[in-house]
Amino acid sequence: MSITLAIGPRVRKSPYFESARKAGLASASVYNHMYMPTSYGDPIAEYERLVTGVAMWDVGVERQVALKGPDALRLARYLTPRNLDGITIGQGKYAPICDYRGTLINDPVLLQVSDDEFWFSIADSDITLWAGGIAGALGMDVKVFEPDVSPLAVQGPKSFDVVADLCGDWVRDLKYFAFRDFELDGIPFVLARSGWSKQGGFEFYLRDGSRGDDLWARVAEAGKPYGIGPGTPNYIERVESGLVSYGADTDEATNPFEMGLGKFMDIDQPHDFVGKSALKDIRDRGVTRRFMGLMIDGAPFQGTNEHWWELTSDGAYAGYACASAYSPRAQSNIAVAMVKTDVIDSGAQVNVHTETGNRTADVVQLPII
Amino acid sequence: MSITLAIGPRVRKSPYFESARKAGLASASVYNHMYMPTSYGDPIAEYERLVTGVAMWDVGVERQVALKGPDALRLARYLTPRNLDGITIGQGKYAPICDYRGTLINDPVLLQVSDDEFWFSIADSDITLWAGGIAGALGMDVKVFEPDVSPLAVQGPKSFDVVADLCGDWVRDLKYFAFRDFELDGIPFVLARSGWSKQGGFEFYLRDGSRGDDLWARVAEAGKPYGIGPGTPNYIERVESGLVSYGADTDEATNPFEMGLGKFMDIDQPHDFVGKSALKDIRDRGVTRRFMGLMIDGAPFQGTNEHWWELTSDGAYAGYACASAYSPRAQSNIAVAMVKTDVIDSGAQVNVHTETGNRTADVVQLPII
Repeated sequence: MSITLAIGPRVRKSPYFESARKAGLASASVYNHMYMPTSYGDPIAEYERLVTGVAMWDVGVERQVALKGPDALRLARYLTPRNLDGITIGQGKYAPICDYRGTLINDPVLLQVSDDEFWFSIADSDITLWAGGIAGALGMDVKVFEPDVSPLAVQGPKSFDVVADLCGDWVRDLKYFAFRDFELDGIPFVLARSGWSKQGGFEFYLRDGSRGDDLWARVAEAGKPYGIGPGTPNYIERVESGLVSYGADTDEATNPFEMGLGKFMDIDQPHDFVGKSALKDIRDRGVTRRFMGLMIDGAPFQGTNEHWWELTSDGAYAGYACASAYSPRAQSNIAVAMVKTDVIDSGAQVNVHTETGNRTADVVQLPII
Repeated sequence: MSITLAIGPRVRKSPYFESARKAGLASASVYNHMYMPTSYGDPIAEYERLVTGVAMWDVGVERQVALKGPDALRLARYLTPRNLDGITIGQGKYAPICDYRGTLINDPVLLQVSDDEFWFSIADSDITLWAGGIAGALGMDVKVFEPDVSPLAVQGPKSFDVVADLCGDWVRDLKYFAFRDFELDGIPFVLARSGWSKQGGFEFYLRDGSRGDDLWARVAEAGKPYGIGPGTPNYIERVESGLVSYGADTDEATNPFEMGLGKFMDIDQPHDFVGKSALKDIRDRGVTRRFMGLMIDGAPFQGTNEHWWELTSDGAYAGYACASAYSPRAQSNIAVAMVKTDVIDSGAQVNVHTETGNRTADVVQLPII
């Protein structure tokens, strides 16, 4: 039986929340202490819109953690194993954050927005507390806070036409993770070439929460000729694309190497950063499990998994499937999974222990599509 | 239209989640990255059970942040303005946590569970990150982690009989916030005289997440003669009792003096703690708003507020109502609210701007009942 989401004053509403409700919001969760839309009731239509057309998503839950002040760059460098040499205003960088044990605690994109201000555009954990505690303990001259910034994503192959119609053809030349300050009718935002899909698109980082419904309406209007409709970060597409979902895929001991994020880290850079020695050790020892894809046999899944599914190989524990879906493009059941490296290396199939019985799966590289 | 709560692998399930569902869980939210039951579909029955009988609540979301190691006490002292002199194993203390600006970021109960281990039993913010970041930055010799501990609350005047039947008559002598290690049929827990109501009761801090359904069944069985039923942290009773709900009542600038928590802090103690100089300044300047009760006129409210309601006095901003309810015991609409001190001191009524029109309210001291 379905459970109703309690709506009350404790959980924050994004600036687009009322617009999303009027557009037929059917289900939601909570992310960064804010309601996060998860479906408008027709998952297949939402998927098709994303991969063949254009969709608009209330992703106001993608909160920003601002570092502002003389020590902002110093703190940013200390918080991520990513090498920030060459970071410039206007070009974001995917910048994983680890704790002192080298455990992944968030996987944000970092944006430099002015000479002395950076934003971590975060997944679901309180990086304001993490960064603010460290800055305070070390006596850094930097303010850590959550600014009034709430992204609205426009995703899908036709997003380029929609956003070009709205903002101008310059948007077609934005590189991935590049961004620029802009406004429409006095609605201020940062426009970034980004979004949690591999279908192309943009995020409007709205800089005035009182204008959410206005921005939503402008985007809906501009998208009409292209068949835009509401959507949400898409469960099926993210599994196909192998996008990391912090919290859904990770546990209390996941390190970034396991998630395939080694290429975003420079462990040997001269700057010190949180977790440096732990990450060196992990790199030198090598990982024992890796984030992989699964092609799962049997009848198409109707929904998704509520819990992680245990994987076994020859009766022994082999890992867990994080998120599963039936993929129309792969014409197969698929999943992202954390799999033991010895099982990956053996090339053996794994057993997937679902709530409705066991399935067999091949372990494959990501992305699946 | 109601929104369905998305159930998936990203949000954690408490060890009692399946039992709660079987008991008829109707609505829920998310708290500390875990599903939190909010209603079994009959709010009035749940309220009556709490104030006249006994109810059992899945409050597994009340996560513990463990500090363990040689510097555990040192870190605990540094994290809270509460004076921890005389803390002993077996007696908890309400211990607010502030950031370096003196802003309230959580209001946990602190339990010393062994010579070198403390637990902050937290509200909804990632204190594991806050405490772990500070400990790491300062090079303290302490491990900060979330242990496998999940509270189940038994609340209401008959809770003493239920828990005495289960654990023995010694439970009747536990002082408020006192606790003791215990077990039933090999189910290990800490039994504490505590809970987020003023109706009396206990919390079973289950120490083995695999035994949640077993503990739930034992409590349900023992409570049967007393008419026990499922419930949740109760909206009406908490407003009557003026209990603080971090996140629902607080904003990004709330300090503990505003919330009436001055008595739990010792700003002048010799130990250093986070926010000490900021809190001294706030104390010396005095607060400009305070957490108060409202008695609101007009027809009984049917539900509660989705958003904060603005308060005005003579047309000027006077604060906000955090949470509202119709109180059967007060036979009035009531609310907890943050009210400007000049308005409180004037004794004037305030206007409450609800979604369905304006109401008039008297500002009163907490608790209301």
